[in-house]
Amino acid sequence: MVVRIEDVAPVVREAQYAVRGPIVARAQELERQGREIIYCNIGNPQALGQRPISWVRQVLALVEYPELLDRAPAGTFPADAVEVARHVLRASEHGLGAYTESKGLRFVRDAIADFIHARDGIQADPEAIFLTDGASKGVQSVLRLLIADARDGVLIPTPQYPLYSATITLYGGAAVPYTLDEAAQWGLSLADLERSYEQARARGIRPRAICVINPGNPTGAVLDARNVEDVLRFARERGLAVLADEVYQDNVYLPGDRFVSFASVLERLGLRDVSLFSFHSVSKGYLGECGHRGGYLECRNVPPAVMDEITKLQSIALCANSVGQIVTYLLVRPPLPGEPSHGTWTRERGEVLESLRRRAAIVERGLDAIPGISCNRVAGAMYAFPRITLPEGATDTEWCLALLEETGICVVPGSGFGQQAGTWHFRTTILPPVEQLEAVVERIGRFHVSFCERRRR
Amino acid sequence: MVVRIEDVAPVVREAQYAVRGPIVARAQELERQGREIIYCNIGNPQALGQRPISWVRQVLALVEYPELLDRAPAGTFPADAVEVARHVLRASEHGLGAYTESKGLRFVRDAIADFIHARDGIQADPEAIFLTDGASKGVQSVLRLLIADARDGVLIPTPQYPLYSATITLYGGAAVPYTLDEAAQWGLSLADLERSYEQARARGIRPRAICVINPGNPTGAVLDARNVEDVLRFARERGLAVLADEVYQDNVYLPGDRFVSFASVLERLGLRDVSLFSFHSVSKGYLGECGHRGGYLECRNVPPAVMDEITKLQSIALCANSVGQIVTYLLVRPPLPGEPSHGTWTRERGEVLESLRRRAAIVERGLDAIPGISCNRVAGAMYAFPRITLPEGATDTEWCLALLEETGICVVPGSGFGQQAGTWHFRTTILPPVEQLEAVVERIGRFHVSFCERRRR
Repeated sequence: MVVRIEDVAPVVREAQYAVRGPIVARAQELERQGREIIYCNIGNPQALGQRPISWVRQVLALVEYPELLDRAPAGTFPADAVEVARHVLRASEHGLGAYTESKGLRFVRDAIADFIHARDGIQADPEAIFLTDGASKGVQSVLRLLIADARDGVLIPTPQYPLYSATITLYGGAAVPYTLDEAAQWGLSLADLERSYEQARARGIRPRAICVINPGNPTGAVLDARNVEDVLRFARERGLAVLADEVYQDNVYLPGDRFVSFASVLERLGLRDVSLFSFHSVSKGYLGECGHRGGYLECRNVPPAVMDEITKLQSIALCANSVGQIVTYLLVRPPLPGEPSHGTWTRERGEVLESLRRRAAIVERGLDAIPGISCNRVAGAMYAFPRITLPEGATDTEWCLALLEETGICVVPGSGFGQQAGTWHFRTTILPPVEQLEAVVERIGRFHVSFCERRRR
Repeated sequence: MVVRIEDVAPVVREAQYAVRGPIVARAQELERQGREIIYCNIGNPQALGQRPISWVRQVLALVEYPELLDRAPAGTFPADAVEVARHVLRASEHGLGAYTESKGLRFVRDAIADFIHARDGIQADPEAIFLTDGASKGVQSVLRLLIADARDGVLIPTPQYPLYSATITLYGGAAVPYTLDEAAQWGLSLADLERSYEQARARGIRPRAICVINPGNPTGAVLDARNVEDVLRFARERGLAVLADEVYQDNVYLPGDRFVSFASVLERLGLRDVSLFSFHSVSKGYLGECGHRGGYLECRNVPPAVMDEITKLQSIALCANSVGQIVTYLLVRPPLPGEPSHGTWTRERGEVLESLRRRAAIVERGLDAIPGISCNRVAGAMYAFPRITLPEGATDTEWCLALLEETGICVVPGSGFGQQAGTWHFRTTILPPVEQLEAVVERIGRFHVSFCERRRR
């Protein structure tokens, strides 16, 4: 037979992922027609000119083609890149061309455990760490475990990153939205968690887990230790597992703010009765190695039998890609002080993070200064989620489409992330280079004035 | 809460994937205790000493670290590897660090269309091609589309590769087994397809699709054009989509046999009313680049709206890893006659395939000569699936575990793939190096005799 759209499983048809949805498809169409498009729809730093960290690529070249270890003349590669490449080849046993263990290469998981210890001062168990093709696949594995039927609920923020809503739809579960408070810099409030939990119960949903994105996507908010503690205590009281999406942990921009991991607070509180799944990635931070699809998932307070189920899910598609695993290794094992590459690595990392900090400020202040647009602080991550005031009858999708057609700027409507009824937003990345970004902000301002004038007539 | 095993979704708990199941876990445990283990459980050539094709790794090193294009002294890389690396960097626009289009890099999909044209003499549409993290992920996407509930059936061979049964279980569908005929070299018979279709209908199942693995895993059988035609006509008459797993298309060993693609037969017959999904991979053939997780899925007679649903599924986890996409490019765009690397590539490719051919014969003849074991021809792929005669009360799982404990050889019981009731089998790869493989076959022979003697007492 010919498979028709009516034949496609309803859960697939119902799933929505706006970050690469119809507006982006239209942008690609315009680009093929010769229009210059500025892609602010997706956190894809290297597509907007961010350069890879040399350390990562030097080691990758050597492990992909180990003949270089002997053939490349002295000075082609720093001595520590050569040494680490030799270590990777030895420790992986079979190089990059073999399937790894389903959980991922053990030496990488060991290095991640060391990284967590260095970051948080807590122990981590390499057997509770799984290497994944980017953080998304890890999130999907955990949600796959927790959703058995349509009554299984998962608390997700509004606004949220649509991986969560799409995956919950695909697995036939129930999304239980909790609201982040726009008036309080997208803060997370315990009262709202309680309210959404109770509402879900009232409609027959069994909440199983709560997802938290910190730093926030699309909000840019950074949780403090108290917020994290609140979520963990709430999860314990309400019998929820916690999914902590911490892929932006290196993207914290405001003086005085710092990233606080869920794992560190869990251990400080000594909680043994809350399962925690934490996610990290090579795609964000200062690496921006999105294409390499590397990441990891760490479990705490998860029984071995349950972790075995994650291993099985991974094994059905064999393993995460080996190169992404090595990039993850290079994320958690950077050049150390005194090693030859340490200076270059420090400089490159600093430049990326300092530039992101500057761009966060340009976007936040620039957008907030536009009449009819208000923008919260971009304290972390790579996005702004400004609120737009629209004339009656206009929608955020129309606004985004018109912006694209008129200016070539591609952003995603707030409806793709969730927003309070009656409010309109859009998500833009902060990733274009500084000069371009200033022009983007200015063009959005001019566009907004003209869009509103036209629609008010 | 702490997630307990009872909290895990039943479809996850029920899914089974023996290729990396408990016997393999036991092998890893023994290995950690210092035992030497010969892993014949999984088609992972580079883990058993197969060397990567230089062409692939040279280009990968250059695209990972483009500074080498200028810095490496003349002669470090062949001129065509340099040229192709420059082309990859230009055509990908942003190098390997950026997310690609959800479908995969367009120039790679163009090259795949050219490859299909050169292989089969038929046109292919790059917009109907999706790059995937290995073929497994492509198979999972298509099954995800087709399975809406427990009455949706998918015909799969017995024996089969457990990706199929595990995925159908995960998506809550119904596996509809059809039997390959062991007495006829694991041949596929139309009568059996009809029988299993009717039986499924009789128990209220709606068959939606048929999966065919050619060359066969675990059987090693190679379909001829007539077989392929039979399947396509059957699918048309019965209203089924076809999933053609063709990852072993370069692994055909017997003189006179050749790989016939489902796409070529579909086009020759001019069938416009059967949806065909074909899968290929960089993990098998002569590359054996399992760790890189590259592959593709090609659709024929699939409406654009349905392909958009595949795109959406891919987009939720963003895209296949970029390096796997480039390895796929290098698979379909090898060095051409007259180019500097063509000689090395031809020699390396020939050595791998010739050695696999020799090893297929060693395994097939060696196992078939053991009293109590009979082994069909290994005409293709990378496995033998011999039948073992066991004393009453013994099972294939016991046999495989005892083999592992006593000899260190890790193979997978037939029950992991499906077998006729009352018969026992195991799957072994043909991948250990020739000398080791001869010892493996001999040790299996001695073990089988002693196992049967002990169990008969």
